[in-house]
Amino acid sequence: MAPVFKLHVLLLGFLLSTFPVVVSAQTLADRLGYPPGTKLIIVHADDLGETHAVNAAATTALQSGAVNSASLMVPCPWFPEIADFAKSHPEADLGLHLTLTSERVYYRWGPVAPSDKVPSLVDENGYFHHDWEGNQRINPKEVEIELRAQVERALRMGVRPTHLDSHQYRLIMNGKELFEVMLRVAHDYKVPVFVNKDWFAEHPYLASSVGPDDIVLDHTVTIEPEVPPEKWSEFYSTALKNLQPGVTEFVIHPGFDDQELRAATRERATWGAAWRERDYDFFSSQQFRNLLQKENIKLITWRELAQLSKRK
Amino acid sequence: MAPVFKLHVLLLGFLLSTFPVVVSAQTLADRLGYPPGTKLIIVHADDLGETHAVNAAATTALQSGAVNSASLMVPCPWFPEIADFAKSHPEADLGLHLTLTSERVYYRWGPVAPSDKVPSLVDENGYFHHDWEGNQRINPKEVEIELRAQVERALRMGVRPTHLDSHQYRLIMNGKELFEVMLRVAHDYKVPVFVNKDWFAEHPYLASSVGPDDIVLDHTVTIEPEVPPEKWSEFYSTALKNLQPGVTEFVIHPGFDDQELRAATRERATWGAAWRERDYDFFSSQQFRNLLQKENIKLITWRELAQLSKRK
Repeated sequence: MAPVFKLHVLLLGFLLSTFPVVVSAQTLADRLGYPPGTKLIIVHADDLGETHAVNAAATTALQSGAVNSASLMVPCPWFPEIADFAKSHPEADLGLHLTLTSERVYYRWGPVAPSDKVPSLVDENGYFHHDWEGNQRINPKEVEIELRAQVERALRMGVRPTHLDSHQYRLIMNGKELFEVMLRVAHDYKVPVFVNKDWFAEHPYLASSVGPDDIVLDHTVTIEPEVPPEKWSEFYSTALKNLQPGVTEFVIHPGFDDQELRAATRERATWGAAWRERDYDFFSSQQFRNLLQKENIKLITWRELAQLSKRK
Repeated sequence: MAPVFKLHVLLLGFLLSTFPVVVSAQTLADRLGYPPGTKLIIVHADDLGETHAVNAAATTALQSGAVNSASLMVPCPWFPEIADFAKSHPEADLGLHLTLTSERVYYRWGPVAPSDKVPSLVDENGYFHHDWEGNQRINPKEVEIELRAQVERALRMGVRPTHLDSHQYRLIMNGKELFEVMLRVAHDYKVPVFVNKDWFAEHPYLASSVGPDDIVLDHTVTIEPEVPPEKWSEFYSTALKNLQPGVTEFVIHPGFDDQELRAATRERATWGAAWRERDYDFFSSQQFRNLLQKENIKLITWRELAQLSKRK
């Protein structure tokens, strides 16, 4: 059996070097002290700072406990309002939703860094690109300048971020180089980055870039345009009923379906005003609270997860 | 009588050098072909682009004829929405409301030019200064860079401005040098600047800086914080009843008193959401239309005034 054992050792060595976190002896839940099989979720609101309607819905949901974590878009016009909330709610679990695109049509924003320092990130009018399709050549050095400018503005304005994540997953889905920029910035500021094992198969560089001190969630649940509006609560209920053990982040987008948000998102329904109010409604519902209890699902925040990191 | 005549000549010479426009042989109304005594008004909405609630109210008012002229804040987040309106309404009388301050607290914006090219205009977070009080040293060269960047963005986005004016009158009230920057930019782009004789006594450099080809209005009417809400229509009615002959610009601030505008302006009531809806309501009222007819007041726009300028 010696040759087989040797092969196993070689394979283990390969796995350890390629997927060091996947083969880590302990799961996140273990490390947090939970018994095997425990189901933990973060209910995370994205896009705070983007519009007032999103700030209003998300802060209401944070205060009622409908969501327990959120992240803020520093370049957006309503960031000062949400930074003020963060300062007056230092216990809230608020990260930074690192933003490099301005994906709407009638309402737009640009970089925090001087636009001539990040030319690959902006269009001819100085806004972030609407998207990164086509021949956009995004310069990772400029990405790093902009990410640091966003963190620095947030710190100066009194925000103490508990984590970093990436608007539209731009820094997750666009290759090793951009992901490692995000990771480097996170390490420098000693905050975890939102990354999870569900993404490793499609983007193997995520697994190879994270180190043993990085926090890697187990799963993500996020609703997609394929779900028709009348199936909204069914989608989330099913996800909660079928939840796997470990730590899952529900990435949701609460907002109020008012004049501002309708106008800001009117060119398409996806992640639009009605979509966001449906998210707000489900997670504010008694149905959601009942499911948490019935399925014995526990809530956790990035603040608790960050305690695990040796970098803290 | 010779010495007295001589004194008159000297005085006339002084007046001509100091107030060349005041002693111009023809009034604006004369030059437009109106009989003596004609009362003309521009009903001008300020601050388009600042919020959606302002865009919605102002475009409704423009389309109903409640206002007949407006100007756009290019650095503001909702500028793309109003630029789109301008493109699809090429007949509308829309100028640029040159903006160098970000005067609210919870909702803010910064320069169009790269912020490191206009350091005297921005605070440590890259927003325009909240105000110019205290020790702000505004660099006129940077003002020129920023004004040209605003005009260029507007042109690229399809806006063909009929005039330029100054948000919070910053470029009018802060000395000859800044006013002449604005005038120089206006001359280069061949558009008139909003300036009027009411301001000459307090700011004599306005009179000495304008040339014979510049358009100088006769009067301005704008409501001030001293007017209590219940006296709003009385203020405007009295102004219309007592209107002097010549060209008067009513500088108004229509907006809808909704969640967005309430949040954006909540730190003070002046030029806030309720204020702006009062403006919208008066100028949309039958009372206003009746007064125009009863007082024989004619409407005029910057588009018509600009025809007078030899620079066109």
